[in-house]
Amino acid sequence: MSELKSKFLEVYPVLKSELLNDPAFEFTDDSRQWVERMLDYNVPGGKLNRGLSVIDSYKLLKHGKELSDDENFLACALGWCIEWLQAYFLVLDDIMDSSYTRRGQPCWFRLPKVGMIAVNDGLILRNQIFRILKKHFRGKPYYVDLLDLFNEVEFQTASGIMIDLISTLQGEKDLSKYSLSIHRRIVQYKTAYYSFYLPVACALLMAGENLDNHTDVKNVLVEMGTYFQVQDDFLDCFGDPEVIGKVGTDIEDFKCSWLVVKALECANEDQKKLLYDNYGKTDQACVAKVKELYKTLDIQGAFAEYENMSYEKITKQIEAHPSKAVQAVLKSFLAKIYKRQK
Amino acid sequence: MSELKSKFLEVYPVLKSELLNDPAFEFTDDSRQWVERMLDYNVPGGKLNRGLSVIDSYKLLKHGKELSDDENFLACALGWCIEWLQAYFLVLDDIMDSSYTRRGQPCWFRLPKVGMIAVNDGLILRNQIFRILKKHFRGKPYYVDLLDLFNEVEFQTASGIMIDLISTLQGEKDLSKYSLSIHRRIVQYKTAYYSFYLPVACALLMAGENLDNHTDVKNVLVEMGTYFQVQDDFLDCFGDPEVIGKVGTDIEDFKCSWLVVKALECANEDQKKLLYDNYGKTDQACVAKVKELYKTLDIQGAFAEYENMSYEKITKQIEAHPSKAVQAVLKSFLAKIYKRQK
Repeated sequence: MSELKSKFLEVYPVLKSELLNDPAFEFTDDSRQWVERMLDYNVPGGKLNRGLSVIDSYKLLKHGKELSDDENFLACALGWCIEWLQAYFLVLDDIMDSSYTRRGQPCWFRLPKVGMIAVNDGLILRNQIFRILKKHFRGKPYYVDLLDLFNEVEFQTASGIMIDLISTLQGEKDLSKYSLSIHRRIVQYKTAYYSFYLPVACALLMAGENLDNHTDVKNVLVEMGTYFQVQDDFLDCFGDPEVIGKVGTDIEDFKCSWLVVKALECANEDQKKLLYDNYGKTDQACVAKVKELYKTLDIQGAFAEYENMSYEKITKQIEAHPSKAVQAVLKSFLAKIYKRQK
Repeated sequence: MSELKSKFLEVYPVLKSELLNDPAFEFTDDSRQWVERMLDYNVPGGKLNRGLSVIDSYKLLKHGKELSDDENFLACALGWCIEWLQAYFLVLDDIMDSSYTRRGQPCWFRLPKVGMIAVNDGLILRNQIFRILKKHFRGKPYYVDLLDLFNEVEFQTASGIMIDLISTLQGEKDLSKYSLSIHRRIVQYKTAYYSFYLPVACALLMAGENLDNHTDVKNVLVEMGTYFQVQDDFLDCFGDPEVIGKVGTDIEDFKCSWLVVKALECANEDQKKLLYDNYGKTDQACVAKVKELYKTLDIQGAFAEYENMSYEKITKQIEAHPSKAVQAVLKSFLAKIYKRQK
């Protein structure tokens, strides 16, 4: 494990302890135990890339200078706020998608005794972000910008999830309604802002920057986030469940996946009919037919082509940026996700 | 309808229109329609007391002076933010409690095609509060205090809902775990902060006050909120579903209601056994036995006694306050809820 990651992990129990002893709330013993268990189950279990990116980006913006203990803690705290945001979305998303597994274990709401209480646990996770921000950043000159940033990104993410859900409703009636344009909008809002823009924006704020001066950075990060979600769509179908930690259900769930949009683009009439007849069904025989069609249409090849093209486009955008420090931040991000297997 | 209420209602379509044309998000036609329908179904349908209290309180703090159009709009916007917060909690609460009706109509999640999408709709409602605050209050000197206030109150409310849910889990194993102390904590956090403190705190901030100087006001409002929730518990069982707009299910749901806590206090061993055997069951025959026991124990009488005692205590606290304007605010609140039927 890298030193960055172990230092980051050390901060989690500190934040957890502060939250479990929050002066604004009188826990009962049962509820304190519940929250501790809920946090440990849902917050630290992922790859932690979003969280780590805050410290990574901040260090690069400081031109590789060693961070003071205080700076390190604050950057880690912001990183954990993003992991908390992630946990909030995943807990609720899994309920809405009726998922079974997440990060190699049962979804939180699937545990006996949890069920729909998980809805409120999601809200608790979200609210804890603002407890962390208030406790550690209230005195900072960029405090209100941090609040605005988290609120705006959360809004964009929830809106993206919404068009994803609504499009699926519409798609269930008429699969041909799925298009690259709708797909792009879904992924931009649902994933790109919180996974890519938010960590870097946090680092920029800590570094004293005005986010209004960095819309170019926002744009290239959103582009990267779009690419990341297309990968996610690909891995949902073609990835190894043991490696990716979840069983993909996009086909059964009628999702507006990049794969089905691409398939609709290149399919002939018979193949389209096969899709209309088999997409969005829980019957594994139907799922298999869809995957077979994807192979016939060489969707995997289309993905590889998209991956290369996107990588080149993003690299060009990065290299056009005037600041070497910012370029380093963006390249660091790209390296983490390019050709990932999980 | 009062002029206050009609002026307040006029502001709703303005805020709705701004949200449906939010520059930070590209709606698809389907999603814009969905959100409009979701808002109209969930936001404006209640008694609007929390929202109206903001304008009411602000006017009283301004010693009855006529409000400018701008002041009126801003006070209404804050009032609507609280109604939005209410809508967010009710949509999600109804899912968690598996409720059927709310405000005289099916719960949002019970509508065909809505279902678990309602979880995300709840998040959208919550996020829209911050879009309204950002659009109309970003330039105000109290903007960051407004954000902190809404975040803290939301945190306290979600925490209260949590101990309510966890206590119910524990209670299902051992009813005797329900106590007045746990009940008090649940209602203080789950209801009092957002229903009573938040509207007045909004008015105080608009009036240029520092909330840290008003903890006495917070305390009496929390006391009022506790009383309000005890009424809510009472009406859940003894109120007319046609009047209160919902069918009460606290008994079936094993809730830590003031009624059952009081019953446990005065019941003899046989009566306790009846409660253990019949509380928390969906069988209407069991529900009837519990209600019968409440009548035998004269819980209605105990409630009337509590209501009078609480009213006197609160009135004394109000009259001890140095400011006549603040007294007027608090008395106005009390008059709305004392001996309410819905």
